[in-house]
Amino acid sequence: MEKVSTNRSHGGEQGVYRHRSTETGTEMTFSVFVPDHAPGTKLPVLWYLSGLTCTHANATEKGEYRAACAEHGIIFLAPDTSPRGADVPDAEGWDFGQGAGFYVDATQAPWAANFRMRSYIESELPELIAAEFPIDSERQGITGHSMGGHGALTISLRNPGRFRSTSAFAPIVSPLACSWGEKALGGYLGPDRAAWREYDACALIENGARLPDLLVDQGGADGFLEEQLKTDLLRAACDRAGQTATIRMQAGYDHSYYFISTFMAEHVAWHAERLTG
Amino acid sequence: MEKVSTNRSHGGEQGVYRHRSTETGTEMTFSVFVPDHAPGTKLPVLWYLSGLTCTHANATEKGEYRAACAEHGIIFLAPDTSPRGADVPDAEGWDFGQGAGFYVDATQAPWAANFRMRSYIESELPELIAAEFPIDSERQGITGHSMGGHGALTISLRNPGRFRSTSAFAPIVSPLACSWGEKALGGYLGPDRAAWREYDACALIENGARLPDLLVDQGGADGFLEEQLKTDLLRAACDRAGQTATIRMQAGYDHSYYFISTFMAEHVAWHAERLTG
Repeated sequence: MEKVSTNRSHGGEQGVYRHRSTETGTEMTFSVFVPDHAPGTKLPVLWYLSGLTCTHANATEKGEYRAACAEHGIIFLAPDTSPRGADVPDAEGWDFGQGAGFYVDATQAPWAANFRMRSYIESELPELIAAEFPIDSERQGITGHSMGGHGALTISLRNPGRFRSTSAFAPIVSPLACSWGEKALGGYLGPDRAAWREYDACALIENGARLPDLLVDQGGADGFLEEQLKTDLLRAACDRAGQTATIRMQAGYDHSYYFISTFMAEHVAWHAERLTG
Repeated sequence: MEKVSTNRSHGGEQGVYRHRSTETGTEMTFSVFVPDHAPGTKLPVLWYLSGLTCTHANATEKGEYRAACAEHGIIFLAPDTSPRGADVPDAEGWDFGQGAGFYVDATQAPWAANFRMRSYIESELPELIAAEFPIDSERQGITGHSMGGHGALTISLRNPGRFRSTSAFAPIVSPLACSWGEKALGGYLGPDRAAWREYDACALIENGARLPDLLVDQGGADGFLEEQLKTDLLRAACDRAGQTATIRMQAGYDHSYYFISTFMAEHVAWHAERLTG
């Protein structure tokens, strides 16, 4: 693991690191904020999965999480959203291919060799960060934005007990029910829609997966709400399944980091209640 | 004045605007955050002047001021750092010319026609924003970073009574005493160093200018501290002149927005004490 940069910030260290991934076959970059802590102690970690087109840098620069994470003593981890590079397959458009890994393990050519973001996030990166940072792996939370909200929900639902707390900002709640999802899952997984269901939060809940609880914030003025995000599908799935969830519509807010940063401190505090003490 | 964008954020509106400047002869862009407020009320304003290479966007995206400004009911204004455009003179390097206006009115060719950031910030922009936003012009504060810290200090010192509160992040405290300043003031104002003194915070204090008080934060691990920023010169000038000042060295922090964002909320609160109530 190579240190790209570290900067002191908000009473902690914001780092950016690069490593060779066996899952993706590429170099992968991620950022980690580690608040100051007593030597030898381990801290809870909050995973943050980013949305379409993003790298680790968007949240790192614009997420406004450091003050809250320092206050609550929580490590914040922001991975990239796909493998990248000249040798990695890509597609026209920003909603498929590099920058749009959708947190799946692709089964279709030419994507299957590199686009293994599910295994990268679920298996490879947890081992790496547990070895390299003062993380208490028994106290993990996960959140994310848009495609990363989809990632946070589906990864947590598929791995019961791993995350004590799960939240999302403007998540894609059902790739089966929107054009972003159809394009991505069709491309990475092929036409059999039954195979998509393990990458669909609503389908996972319908199939019986459960979380201790769930916090979702969605901007009411988000231009993607109606066609892609469809928050109401998640609300309905939770209602039908008896899944406890707080799903808030925030009037006037859009899909940008101006929205995410507004509610980030509340999300960190919500995770902290479940991860600390 | 043209609206470039508005985004709801932190219980207010983050706007970006563009207008034709008579001072610079160019289009100029700035950002304004206006917290929600009762109709008809006017709010204090905090000016934030940015550093070398920056536009309004750096602070707008990475400054982490909105939560504090919303809490205290303060408008936050971030102008650009110079005129820009294909028709505007420029120079090699990032420390002179476009993106490096140094908040002076240039007297030397080819800069004099456009590089009038002093008059733009002191005269033109205040009139524009007072007409367009719910600003109480009797309650203004000013801050800035690096070259913008120099701008904040010198503009406030030259205009006694205009700003109730003045602070700075890692300011260039004496352009007369550093290579950035020698290059910029020499280029914009010519070789007569006597003419530079009205653009040098230490010289202005030495000449008798005073502020009600002053807050400065400086990163102890800032790579520009020793050669360019020279905080000790400001401390000495304030000591000799009996100028009240809180000048804090923040161990481990560098020159980046990771530093600025860490102390932004404290600065906003410090200005709020002097601007509200």
